[in-house]
Amino acid sequence: MKYADKLLPREKVFRDPVHNYIYVQNQVIADLIDTPEFQRLRRVKQLGTTSFTFHGAEHSRFGHCLGVYEITRRICNNFQKNYPTKKAGDGLWDQSDRLVALCAALLHDIGHGAYSHTFEHIFKTDHEAITREIITSNQTAVNHILKQVSPDFPEKVASVIKKTYQNPQVVQMISSQCDADRMDYLLRDSYYTGTNYGDFDLNRILRIMRPYKNGICFESNGMHSVEDYIIGRFQMYQQVYFHPVSRSMECVLDRLLARAKHLYQHHPKTNGLHADLLEPFFNHQFNLEDYLELDDGVLNTYFISWKHHAKDKILRDLAHRFIDRRPFASVKYNQQTKSEIPKMRKLIKAAGFDTNYYTTTNNSFDLPYDIYYPNKKNVSGINLKRPDGSLVELSTVSSLVNAITDKLQGDQRFFFPKEMLECGDKVEIFQPLYQKFQQHIKNNTIIKKRG
Amino acid sequence: MKYADKLLPREKVFRDPVHNYIYVQNQVIADLIDTPEFQRLRRVKQLGTTSFTFHGAEHSRFGHCLGVYEITRRICNNFQKNYPTKKAGDGLWDQSDRLVALCAALLHDIGHGAYSHTFEHIFKTDHEAITREIITSNQTAVNHILKQVSPDFPEKVASVIKKTYQNPQVVQMISSQCDADRMDYLLRDSYYTGTNYGDFDLNRILRIMRPYKNGICFESNGMHSVEDYIIGRFQMYQQVYFHPVSRSMECVLDRLLARAKHLYQHHPKTNGLHADLLEPFFNHQFNLEDYLELDDGVLNTYFISWKHHAKDKILRDLAHRFIDRRPFASVKYNQQTKSEIPKMRKLIKAAGFDTNYYTTTNNSFDLPYDIYYPNKKNVSGINLKRPDGSLVELSTVSSLVNAITDKLQGDQRFFFPKEMLECGDKVEIFQPLYQKFQQHIKNNTIIKKRG
Amino acid sequence: MKYADKLLPREKVFRDPVHNYIYVQNQVIADLIDTPEFQRLRRVKQLGTTSFTFHGAEHSRFGHCLGVYEITRRICNNFQKNYPTKKAGDGLWDQSDRLVALCAALLHDIGHGAYSHTFEHIFKTDHEAITREIITSNQTAVNHILKQVSPDFPEKVASVIKKTYQNPQVVQMISSQCDADRMDYLLRDSYYTGTNYGDFDLNRILRIMRPYKNGICFESNGMHSVEDYIIGRFQMYQQVYFHPVSRSMECVLDRLLARAKHLYQHHPKTNGLHADLLEPFFNHQFNLEDYLELDDGVLNTYFISWKHHAKDKILRDLAHRFIDRRPFASVKYNQQTKSEIPKMRKLIKAAGFDTNYYTTTNNSFDLPYDIYYPNKKNVSGINLKRPDGSLVELSTVSSLVNAITDKLQGDQRFFFPKEMLECGDKVEIFQPLYQKFQQHIKNNTIIKKRG
Amino acid sequence: MKYADKLLPREKVFRDPVHNYIYVQNQVIADLIDTPEFQRLRRVKQLGTTSFTFHGAEHSRFGHCLGVYEITRRICNNFQKNYPTKKAGDGLWDQSDRLVALCAALLHDIGHGAYSHTFEHIFKTDHEAITREIITSNQTAVNHILKQVSPDFPEKVASVIKKTYQNPQVVQMISSQCDADRMDYLLRDSYYTGTNYGDFDLNRILRIMRPYKNGICFESNGMHSVEDYIIGRFQMYQQVYFHPVSRSMECVLDRLLARAKHLYQHHPKTNGLHADLLEPFFNHQFNLEDYLELDDGVLNTYFISWKHHAKDKILRDLAHRFIDRRPFASVKYNQQTKSEIPKMRKLIKAAGFDTNYYTTTNNSFDLPYDIYYPNKKNVSGINLKRPDGSLVELSTVSSLVNAITDKLQGDQRFFFPKEMLECGDKVEIFQPLYQKFQQHIKNNTIIKKRG
Repeated sequence: MKYADKLLPREKVFRDPVHNYIYVQNQVIADLIDTPEFQRLRRVKQLGTTSFTFHGAEHSRFGHCLGVYEITRRICNNFQKNYPTKKAGDGLWDQSDRLVALCAALLHDIGHGAYSHTFEHIFKTDHEAITREIITSNQTAVNHILKQVSPDFPEKVASVIKKTYQNPQVVQMISSQCDADRMDYLLRDSYYTGTNYGDFDLNRILRIMRPYKNGICFESNGMHSVEDYIIGRFQMYQQVYFHPVSRSMECVLDRLLARAKHLYQHHPKTNGLHADLLEPFFNHQFNLEDYLELDDGVLNTYFISWKHHAKDKILRDLAHRFIDRRPFASVKYNQQTKSEIPKMRKLIKAAGFDTNYYTTTNNSFDLPYDIYYPNKKNVSGINLKRPDGSLVELSTVSSLVNAITDKLQGDQRFFFPKEMLECGDKVEIFQPLYQKFQQHIKNNTIIKKRG
Repeated sequence: MKYADKLLPREKVFRDPVHNYIYVQNQVIADLIDTPEFQRLRRVKQLGTTSFTFHGAEHSRFGHCLGVYEITRRICNNFQKNYPTKKAGDGLWDQSDRLVALCAALLHDIGHGAYSHTFEHIFKTDHEAITREIITSNQTAVNHILKQVSPDFPEKVASVIKKTYQNPQVVQMISSQCDADRMDYLLRDSYYTGTNYGDFDLNRILRIMRPYKNGICFESNGMHSVEDYIIGRFQMYQQVYFHPVSRSMECVLDRLLARAKHLYQHHPKTNGLHADLLEPFFNHQFNLEDYLELDDGVLNTYFISWKHHAKDKILRDLAHRFIDRRPFASVKYNQQTKSEIPKMRKLIKAAGFDTNYYTTTNNSFDLPYDIYYPNKKNVSGINLKRPDGSLVELSTVSSLVNAITDKLQGDQRFFFPKEMLECGDKVEIFQPLYQKFQQHIKNNTIIKKRG
Repeated sequence: MKYADKLLPREKVFRDPVHNYIYVQNQVIADLIDTPEFQRLRRVKQLGTTSFTFHGAEHSRFGHCLGVYEITRRICNNFQKNYPTKKAGDGLWDQSDRLVALCAALLHDIGHGAYSHTFEHIFKTDHEAITREIITSNQTAVNHILKQVSPDFPEKVASVIKKTYQNPQVVQMISSQCDADRMDYLLRDSYYTGTNYGDFDLNRILRIMRPYKNGICFESNGMHSVEDYIIGRFQMYQQVYFHPVSRSMECVLDRLLARAKHLYQHHPKTNGLHADLLEPFFNHQFNLEDYLELDDGVLNTYFISWKHHAKDKILRDLAHRFIDRRPFASVKYNQQTKSEIPKMRKLIKAAGFDTNYYTTTNNSFDLPYDIYYPNKKNVSGINLKRPDGSLVELSTVSSLVNAITDKLQGDQRFFFPKEMLECGDKVEIFQPLYQKFQQHIKNNTIIKKRG
Repeated sequence: MKYADKLLPREKVFRDPVHNYIYVQNQVIADLIDTPEFQRLRRVKQLGTTSFTFHGAEHSRFGHCLGVYEITRRICNNFQKNYPTKKAGDGLWDQSDRLVALCAALLHDIGHGAYSHTFEHIFKTDHEAITREIITSNQTAVNHILKQVSPDFPEKVASVIKKTYQNPQVVQMISSQCDADRMDYLLRDSYYTGTNYGDFDLNRILRIMRPYKNGICFESNGMHSVEDYIIGRFQMYQQVYFHPVSRSMECVLDRLLARAKHLYQHHPKTNGLHADLLEPFFNHQFNLEDYLELDDGVLNTYFISWKHHAKDKILRDLAHRFIDRRPFASVKYNQQTKSEIPKMRKLIKAAGFDTNYYTTTNNSFDLPYDIYYPNKKNVSGINLKRPDGSLVELSTVSSLVNAITDKLQGDQRFFFPKEMLECGDKVEIFQPLYQKFQQHIKNNTIIKKRG
């Protein structure tokens, strides 16, 4: 039997708190899960610094990837049962695309590293490129398995992730406004944070999902369940993903890594970092193997070591702030009040902080979470199929979705040491300075200072 | 105002997936949570190797400790509202014990280290002793805070954990057959594994719990909810905590650490372990500071490094098996079939494995999980209070509980490399040897071999 | 002890699937629950004909009323704990209003009758007036109990329901845009229908709710949980309360009752209705006692009897359609297409149906469910309290809420016998007529017919 | 196409709070659901008087019957996918039995009447016989539909319910120790009561269920999930089904119906019952049509009428006690203390109560709920299939199940008016008598009275 068609002697299940069970029948999928590259995902948190705010959200990317696979499997089953293609080009589902869809779903995040967003910011890595490299490079176990399916299979899987695969249905299963990826992470992040914002009716959405010529659409009579999902997504951004304290911990991490890199580059002999596994990244000379040796625990191990043993006082302090959860304080600002920030930085400097490493700004608009942009380049909206066969875009018929479409949602924040907000005996000598600083702020927002 | 009585300006909440919210009013509690010793618990998994079997169970001891605090807080509130003491010795609740109960609940697990059970086995550490040391040693932030309450307060808190505190009600809240610790971990481990075995009616149990002279008892009209909790606990052991694959991964870890220690001690110059933070433990010369620098991520970091870079082949291979999840296979045995194991070990050795590091046995009876032993030394059973005020022990009135009382539940297993169960082309040369080995096994159990 | 202050010897609990437990401490509340008037609510479904669409939603008003009481109890507890009044007029919570709030919450729906909305339409009853009458009439057990609190207590409770009670906080607890009534029914109806649209974070909303001079407001930092509740409410209307099939069954019921009334009034001797308990209503000469003898089961009993035994063919048929769930078909229309309805009615008549009893229109805008109208007469919006103490109305800061504010949501439908949509052999002789009728409809909507 | 094979143009779903959705593909099933006989189940509560104790449990038999159908559908799908027969007699699943299984599942309870158990007790009806009659009598819509499948199809369906159908797999799906009926009602009754005792892992049980020659068995590696189900069932009996207050309301109902029957039979002219629909039952001369006109609401309507208008004082009072929820009090007794009951009855009589109608005894052992009897006549135990193919009965390998097997669980109770337990001013004249009565009771149990 061809490896592509090989089934496990007995279906394997993974107990999952979100989907109850995750079902694996294909040998290929079972083998991919067992690769070192995939097992590494157990050691990379799904939500990075968010667990500093929502302590329950300590889940890794491993469960999420299984979940995306499971949802994709269910979509494929549904399509095969209800919409099997009869002849090429009829816009229905071609079962020969099943395995590529399942593999792409399982592997879509395999390139994610520790504290992805921040790490990429400092070290100029790109987790999507690395995902594709893990799939196509002949040095990985993943690639070795995929090649057994067929020599061009790795490229096919990678092209799904790159959104260039020839069948848009497969691409949109994994990556579109209402795809297996987003559906799993909303449910999963809701479950683990203990919030209920991202809890929507997955069964119903899967039920009304259907293939068409240009991808995937939804039957219009189930419009409200898609609407519910979009609203849930919006609320998860507002309440969980954009949470100021998580972002603050990301800022601490960002400055910590920046400081370490600075010490490495400018004090090559004396930095005392002892961070072997990070060296290739400080040097900007890393290969895939280097990347795959990193995970959350490895970075934290260095931070713990720096906290206790680093010579540089700023590095020691920032490592302490990160490891022991000492977030920066933050205030909102806008275009009008932005001009106050330099003045505030001066006061922070006068209070004894190196503002390069103790202040920063962060814009939640920039964060890697999308809201609903039906007109965004390369992003198609969600299409509903009406009884007469015509398509209509969701935001044109849902007043709720329309309300949040194409609108920037989020805020800009200025981060700085919490000490600046203190008052009382301990900080005696800085008291006047702190008071001056605090006059820039009202209701957690920077205000124009009078006079 | 006294520090002990100081309340936060505004109650603080932690969103929790199990208890919805965890409420903190006392400044002391908020300060304890912010200590480095307590924050370290974020980096120690609650269930160790269990997440290799139940991938959802990646939660840390941090959330559990908050949960035990929260349940204890609710017990105290209930006791204060319904059973406040009127005069000394009346067996009712003395509110002046509230803070010591809350602190002991929060800190009861603070000495837990990475992969506790296995680590202790190899390095002879004792997490309960370390818990008490963290509380009473003047080198910790925890102790510094507790001392502000009163000079003897750390000793009081430690004595609750040691079960010597003068008020048995406080001791039994934290540690008894139906205590805040067990109640939280059953609910929490159920939630994160996605099983429902440990899901009982916490509200009802708290409602029927009441203080009496010798500790805590339960109103007999709520007997069934306590029964349900005991059964749930029993099922969690059977289904989750004793799971053979988790235990197998613990065996791999045990052998891995044993090998590393062996190399360190017998090849001091050439072992190339580069495991600075573990050295004090290899030497059996560690202090509290050394201990507090360890966590799951630190150990994993060494394992990753060994997997790729260790010189010793066995160390490299065991690190690979642990990091990439390659559990040993296992079979059950009993007193009768125990004698087969040496024969099986011989075959394993003949197949090329060092049986010191590739085989082991494990008895789930030994695991640090208790079943219901009302007569166990130092462990009192669960007492029910009848309408006429008399007490009766649970197992004497519940046939279900009686069925599992004082009975050993669990199994003995022999662990060995999965390769021994393989067949087919790849293993050609060992084929006859493997077949011989497999004749010792039927239905996953060792059998007496004929002839 | 005064009756008003009397507590039960032991707190009583009701197991509730929505709130887990409902707690009763006051003798007054326990006594009210035991009255025949309150027990009658067990025999009146909360959602009327909705259970014909969502079969799980068979719950009665009894549980809902307990739920509204429980939420109000929790609000009062929270207000008393965190915002107790210090001096008159300080806008904080006066605990002496607790009992009136609890009683009003418990009794707010006690005047609801069987199939309320439709019954009121045909018989010109008014459940709110009857609620007040049950409270203030000296013929009821409810009134007898309330009077024991104090002679003017019944009037006080009634005035809360009438929204004229002097303390707007109490009024708004029971009746405002975010009150105990709406909060309970959204959670409860979600639970019983098995949808999750109405599932919001009750704990968090209760936590941020606070009294102020003119009623109740919410802390602005919890804005998103109120937003979530409003969106959930909107979705419940769209998905559950406005469901066309439930409305269709209401139309059948409406026509059925109209027919019975017609027969009673125009054929006094020969109608053969045998509906003793309905007679006072056919006559428009009913008293409170008559009203309290009715419930869902009594009406259904007449319908069953009519279905089998009525002489009038239309009555028999409509009773069959209602009892055996044969909803009318329906199509949407608007101002433009309204003019087609008379033409369609002609065809229906030609097909043999009395259009007085077999067709009707229904506008979901008229249904007794409110969406969010912050500017509606007598309805204040939801106010958020900012850190600096100023208030701001929710829809001005939430783009989601703003999207649905003051906008009509719902549809107008024309109802008619399903037979008109049939085709095929059975209906041979009406075939051309049916086809003509169906040309008026496209995508479940009336269209302008060409020609 | 044959009617048996006809599928709906589009799969129909019922939203269900327990199973999320219930899926209907077959035209036969859709037609059966639409019959008057099946729709009648909406008007018969699943748990009778239990909703007087657990107010949330107001669900009807309609949802339960859909649920049993749905579980059976999933079992059939699983069997067809994994265990399709290859040749006759191989003990695997024969898909041609699918429709008979689905119909039997849907219709298994269709003969249930209002307050089944009590009604049967007084009027000597038999809901199982009536179920079969509804299926096989040519006067019902159900029979008309089934006959369209094939002339002998009604008999086939009826034989499944009678447990005489030739394929034991089909019989055991619907009726055995672990069947679709019990599995649905445990989940459903748990959900609606708001308890969690009956909540087990349905998915896992369905997964390990498999056909064999003599019926249905379970893979032994999933033993714990079956164990969990059995324990849950046991707990539901103890906590919900045997609840003394629900049984007390059943006793009130029993005495109420007995009184009405007595009046009808002994005072034919003057009883003034006006209970037309009950007459055939008072006479013991009813036919199927009479039976199908009854439901909970019809009985309640008579009770309401009797409460207000009956001439007989006892009937009026018992109707009031039932309609307004005034349960009898009850105490436990056993073989030893049984002899006290006549003495107690004397005192009750002396207090002015007709003991024929105001006292009764009830034995929960007699209730129509089964515990686990593997050796009971006609009831086979639960068989587990081990890896080597051999079967083993559950109670021999599960110590928990063994603990409750073949043991009587429940209690005997004596019911009497609550007034007998009163004390205080109101009952002045009976005070000594009441005190004497109360001396027979301790801890809610009858005791031997001294002297």
